[in-house]
Amino acid sequence: MTVHTGRHFLQIPGPTNVPDRVLRAMDMPTLDHRGPEFAELGMHVLAAMQRVFRTKQPVMIYPSSGTGAWEAAIVNTLSPGDKVLMAETGQFATLWRNLAERFKLDIDFVPGDWRHGADLAEIEKRLAADKAHAIKAVMIVHNETSTGCVTYPLDVRKILDRVSHPALLMVDTVSGLGSLEYEHDAWGIDVSVAGSQKGLMLPPGLGFNAVSEKALEASKANQSFRSYWDWQEIIAANKLGSWPYTPATNLLYALKEAVAMLEEEGLDNVFARHKRHGAAARAAVKAWGLETVPVEAQDHSPALTAVLMPEGHDADAFRKLVLENFDMSLGTGLNKWKGKIFRIGHIGHFNDLMLMGTLAGVEMGLAVAKVPHRAGGVMAAMDVLTGKSVVPMQKAAVA
Amino acid sequence: MTVHTGRHFLQIPGPTNVPDRVLRAMDMPTLDHRGPEFAELGMHVLAAMQRVFRTKQPVMIYPSSGTGAWEAAIVNTLSPGDKVLMAETGQFATLWRNLAERFKLDIDFVPGDWRHGADLAEIEKRLAADKAHAIKAVMIVHNETSTGCVTYPLDVRKILDRVSHPALLMVDTVSGLGSLEYEHDAWGIDVSVAGSQKGLMLPPGLGFNAVSEKALEASKANQSFRSYWDWQEIIAANKLGSWPYTPATNLLYALKEAVAMLEEEGLDNVFARHKRHGAAARAAVKAWGLETVPVEAQDHSPALTAVLMPEGHDADAFRKLVLENFDMSLGTGLNKWKGKIFRIGHIGHFNDLMLMGTLAGVEMGLAVAKVPHRAGGVMAAMDVLTGKSVVPMQKAAVA
Amino acid sequence: MTVHTGRHFLQIPGPTNVPDRVLRAMDMPTLDHRGPEFAELGMHVLAAMQRVFRTKQPVMIYPSSGTGAWEAAIVNTLSPGDKVLMAETGQFATLWRNLAERFKLDIDFVPGDWRHGADLAEIEKRLAADKAHAIKAVMIVHNETSTGCVTYPLDVRKILDRVSHPALLMVDTVSGLGSLEYEHDAWGIDVSVAGSQKGLMLPPGLGFNAVSEKALEASKANQSFRSYWDWQEIIAANKLGSWPYTPATNLLYALKEAVAMLEEEGLDNVFARHKRHGAAARAAVKAWGLETVPVEAQDHSPALTAVLMPEGHDADAFRKLVLENFDMSLGTGLNKWKGKIFRIGHIGHFNDLMLMGTLAGVEMGLAVAKVPHRAGGVMAAMDVLTGKSVVPMQKAAVA
Amino acid sequence: MTVHTGRHFLQIPGPTNVPDRVLRAMDMPTLDHRGPEFAELGMHVLAAMQRVFRTKQPVMIYPSSGTGAWEAAIVNTLSPGDKVLMAETGQFATLWRNLAERFKLDIDFVPGDWRHGADLAEIEKRLAADKAHAIKAVMIVHNETSTGCVTYPLDVRKILDRVSHPALLMVDTVSGLGSLEYEHDAWGIDVSVAGSQKGLMLPPGLGFNAVSEKALEASKANQSFRSYWDWQEIIAANKLGSWPYTPATNLLYALKEAVAMLEEEGLDNVFARHKRHGAAARAAVKAWGLETVPVEAQDHSPALTAVLMPEGHDADAFRKLVLENFDMSLGTGLNKWKGKIFRIGHIGHFNDLMLMGTLAGVEMGLAVAKVPHRAGGVMAAMDVLTGKSVVPMQKAAVA
Repeated sequence: MTVHTGRHFLQIPGPTNVPDRVLRAMDMPTLDHRGPEFAELGMHVLAAMQRVFRTKQPVMIYPSSGTGAWEAAIVNTLSPGDKVLMAETGQFATLWRNLAERFKLDIDFVPGDWRHGADLAEIEKRLAADKAHAIKAVMIVHNETSTGCVTYPLDVRKILDRVSHPALLMVDTVSGLGSLEYEHDAWGIDVSVAGSQKGLMLPPGLGFNAVSEKALEASKANQSFRSYWDWQEIIAANKLGSWPYTPATNLLYALKEAVAMLEEEGLDNVFARHKRHGAAARAAVKAWGLETVPVEAQDHSPALTAVLMPEGHDADAFRKLVLENFDMSLGTGLNKWKGKIFRIGHIGHFNDLMLMGTLAGVEMGLAVAKVPHRAGGVMAAMDVLTGKSVVPMQKAAVA
Repeated sequence: MTVHTGRHFLQIPGPTNVPDRVLRAMDMPTLDHRGPEFAELGMHVLAAMQRVFRTKQPVMIYPSSGTGAWEAAIVNTLSPGDKVLMAETGQFATLWRNLAERFKLDIDFVPGDWRHGADLAEIEKRLAADKAHAIKAVMIVHNETSTGCVTYPLDVRKILDRVSHPALLMVDTVSGLGSLEYEHDAWGIDVSVAGSQKGLMLPPGLGFNAVSEKALEASKANQSFRSYWDWQEIIAANKLGSWPYTPATNLLYALKEAVAMLEEEGLDNVFARHKRHGAAARAAVKAWGLETVPVEAQDHSPALTAVLMPEGHDADAFRKLVLENFDMSLGTGLNKWKGKIFRIGHIGHFNDLMLMGTLAGVEMGLAVAKVPHRAGGVMAAMDVLTGKSVVPMQKAAVA
Repeated sequence: MTVHTGRHFLQIPGPTNVPDRVLRAMDMPTLDHRGPEFAELGMHVLAAMQRVFRTKQPVMIYPSSGTGAWEAAIVNTLSPGDKVLMAETGQFATLWRNLAERFKLDIDFVPGDWRHGADLAEIEKRLAADKAHAIKAVMIVHNETSTGCVTYPLDVRKILDRVSHPALLMVDTVSGLGSLEYEHDAWGIDVSVAGSQKGLMLPPGLGFNAVSEKALEASKANQSFRSYWDWQEIIAANKLGSWPYTPATNLLYALKEAVAMLEEEGLDNVFARHKRHGAAARAAVKAWGLETVPVEAQDHSPALTAVLMPEGHDADAFRKLVLENFDMSLGTGLNKWKGKIFRIGHIGHFNDLMLMGTLAGVEMGLAVAKVPHRAGGVMAAMDVLTGKSVVPMQKAAVA
Repeated sequence: MTVHTGRHFLQIPGPTNVPDRVLRAMDMPTLDHRGPEFAELGMHVLAAMQRVFRTKQPVMIYPSSGTGAWEAAIVNTLSPGDKVLMAETGQFATLWRNLAERFKLDIDFVPGDWRHGADLAEIEKRLAADKAHAIKAVMIVHNETSTGCVTYPLDVRKILDRVSHPALLMVDTVSGLGSLEYEHDAWGIDVSVAGSQKGLMLPPGLGFNAVSEKALEASKANQSFRSYWDWQEIIAANKLGSWPYTPATNLLYALKEAVAMLEEEGLDNVFARHKRHGAAARAAVKAWGLETVPVEAQDHSPALTAVLMPEGHDADAFRKLVLENFDMSLGTGLNKWKGKIFRIGHIGHFNDLMLMGTLAGVEMGLAVAKVPHRAGGVMAAMDVLTGKSVVPMQKAAVA
């Protein structure tokens, strides 16, 4: 049995710390999902999610993980054999590709080194070369949670426009939504994929798709077998605030409360807060003399900071030590980064002092684990938070 | 805004009333789904669900509705064009068939009148006639929630054995598990499908598959496209108490607590309690001079009672009146029963006095709505509960 | 360990069933009781309680039981040796008298038979006879929870006015406030005493005093030793939304939510609801052929119904049987009623179907316990609730 | 409306951060306080509190603040005119004295400068001089929350024994119990006073008295008017797990859970944790170049650290800035320390990273407020926590 003598620091980049208000909202008796009180809730959360995605188009809310929403994006719009362009930004891009392979898509995977956002030049090159428009969709990960590198969806939209390519633009913003600027409509996204357990500050259990008219058109023509993920039935039922199957009622209560919190703070303030915390975290890493996974300033995610372990030190051993000594969960290195990096989540329901506790936990962990580093990361972060040092922020989302 | 001056009576046949203990268990901070504390939870709930299904085989826990678990059963074991035998017991059997059609199964749908369990004689006849074993699966609904009619899975297993047919036996026990006897292994079920929001006393948001070795074998050979629902990856991850994608952490806390409650009461007591309440509810219906949807005594579900409205009275208008006057949600008539029946749920976290409040709500609703009936249903039910009248129970599950 | 297979029926006349909204409001992190967020809460609940008491005068909120608020009423306004007029309406009047004796008050206790409200004629007689105004206070219990008999405070005020007696009028409305009409200012009450766990729908832990200017004046002159209960310091601190000692923060959250609920329903509707339920409960008792403790129609409390057990049957054995068989708590007979009566609470967060479950539990209990009675109480109550029988309501509070 | 973008840091020295487990335990339906399930709870928490106080004598649990428990200690054992010896250690000692004055005790108040524990030499001198044993009680504050200075009760017991003085030893351990070693029986304490909202990790609303046989004897003889606080009735009722008036049921659930948590951690580990955090906090203060209120090493409280503001800076303006910028509540300076000190609570449900967030909030606050200080406090604290610096701990409780 684990004894927690204080609050656990859940600093993986998702699931994130769920606000008490959200947990308590979830902790209410389940409603009749076919009754009027539920219908009101349904309409409320659907409209709320449109505001969060910044879209006037339908938003699908699935009882699922974010992975389910990936699958939904594919089976609604694409058919076996369809060519798609994806970009290897890290583990989540790779998992999405693997999933696409299971549905027999023909994947053109722009390679990457897991330390950058998507290779935009290469994407542009390949799209430009695709005169026949064989590529049906470009699929990118907005905030690559395995590396802390951002790819800006608007950049990809601009490329598509520049080369006049009609491919659908699909964006995984699972860990972006609610923490980084996101504009489903204004940026011309065709399918957005998100999940509940990151910037939306909910427990896991809800997946989302926001869609464009073009994506909806594609879905109507698409013959891929599907039922659970099918958009049409959901959209039809949603018009009355209901769903074609029993929705995850209590998570919808939580969603209502979480969006209320985001809107009380103001989405712009939410995004600014994440950027500020990202800058402070990077200042700490730099002061420790360690290296972040992202190489370029503009790639840095405001939602998490991935840190390379010095040669000869195992990142997972370090994480275990931090967990056991300081009751903090850090994110593990995934796939090729296994044992080589750890990830600090500063996403969701979070504030300056939680960040400082987090960074102190890393700094003390480094000391206890005798990982070579310089002390002073926490101080450097405080200097950022108090405005004493001005650090370059990452690129604005709308470049 | 709905004003509840007391506790709402959620007497649809699911989602059911969630116990406070379960809601409160869910209302705890989300854990790192890759950490040791979570792994312990994962192992715990997987073992717990094996006990509930009475199986030693793997149990899949999906972040999904029960519908998702239907889909999982199909895409793991069957391929487009595969012939399956289903039985029209009501709306849920029909929906499952519709889902199967979307995956291009070749469905032999044994007709039914939505007032009985599955037509076992016809099933036997068709299976016996299938000398070539073209039928890959027999798919039945254990507790047809749209009619309150039970089909006993063991009866179907006996048929398969009698005619030596190798088809997989798939059972939807979404509203059966946790309220009616169920023996996944002993009854030779190949795929069981369940959901969280019925007898398991949880909010909606979890779907389940219990599987047999034979089903697992079938899944390995099966080429249907799938990813989210794929058993193999889940089983592999589950060995360590984890999942291939982020599980619905807080619903798993709830699941742990709910199974603890079922086991504190004792599953056999849980089943007996549901039978007792079913008998009392039917006594009330009979006293009112109304007719239950099920015609045969042995078909009556212990989990809900579906009631035919007298000619000339709309069941949904009645339900609305009951909701507005007595703050109770009753189940609507689905599909061909729309407006013609209402359903009384007496499933899950429930006791004698909740039942009496429920039946009183119906009886008073009938009075207020001026639906022709005799008073005295509540009294008749009390006589059953106090042992004054002995009413025939429905057939034992293990016939 | 007690296994609850459904929701426990807490039908004692307080503590009452606490709404989920109130429990959840209480279940939030404790605030700095000296910070601005708390001050806002403090001001809010103080104003809210003024609305509930219908007073513009100060309301004291103590971290205490209602008993504490009794003591506060005394030690603030009265001194050892002071003469007071009290009325023996039942156990709570007796306990208050006992408490007063401990503070050496000289008590004139108008006798009663525990089956009526206070003997108003006798009160008037004694007050009229007290030409020297030796009587410093008249202390009555509004809703005598041990008998279910109401004494209307306005009647007492009228008497005082009629005989031009300057005594303070003190009213215990512990189980009246929030369930029966109450007008602290309009009825000329000098000190009102209340508690959180009855009509206010909170857990126990808060006691209240509402006071008049006259009572405040009396308190300034009064030399009784006191500190915890002292009004002056509390009133001074309350002006800034704080308290002289740490208040029961989380119960104040609960209070805010509970008053919000009462006001959403509308206090007048709340009172009407209690009357309706009282009438239905009495119809049941009458139908059973049992006798209520109150003898006169006008004395019947809308908040609870006390029932005499037939000769030869022990009320506590009956209560135990009901608890064990039907998971319902009924109120015990107190003091001279020990073993002779049981009390049915229908107060606080309550609705028609909870009442019907409650009455069914009593009716079935009577059957199981083989207590002589006629069946049909539940039916009679339904007739009242559906308007089929019109039963005389108890006297309006404002006669 | 206050927007919390993350968890508020409640770092006043009480109320303290309440664990989620405790809040959730409290958030359960209220029980019949006269029923068997409650009796079990009552017996459980009474035994649990005996273990926490380390006593085999009765423990009183009041629905009250800690202030109420102060009053209870006095009115049960002392009478107007009785002489008592108290020690001016700070605001809480002063408030207790004021309370004692209201009950007309004759108080000999050993002066103090609010920067030390009680003046033991002077206490010994006065007791030794009291050959007639006029002094009926010595009343000291164990952990003076207004200054962060500890007085060790055992030292006072030794004095009493040395001079063979029969006075009762009364100890306010409101903020000591559950954070500092405490041995009611072994240290010969006659009356211990405590509250729920400090080391016991509960919301405010419960007050406690632990008593010795000698104190009980004194109470039997004592004629002070009392009812609510009277020990005899409580002890009598407690034998059956009940109380003479409605107890604060839901806070008792919370108490059960909180003691379970303390015992899972182990009380000795709890105490060691508080000492460690105190040492780290003091290291930070020293590194900032600021001064703690306590002057002597042995007086330092493990539960809070009070810090003197540099001349010319208002501590409350600083606290306001910290609250507004970093969402952290620090303790205010009370009475003569108003505006001159702030207090950092590190008591109750707390861990290393919460402490680091707390200290970072102070350090950043000092920077933003431009209070003269040296940076590096947070680093100094980390050195203590990681064992890099060894700082002298405060005196062991059992000297």
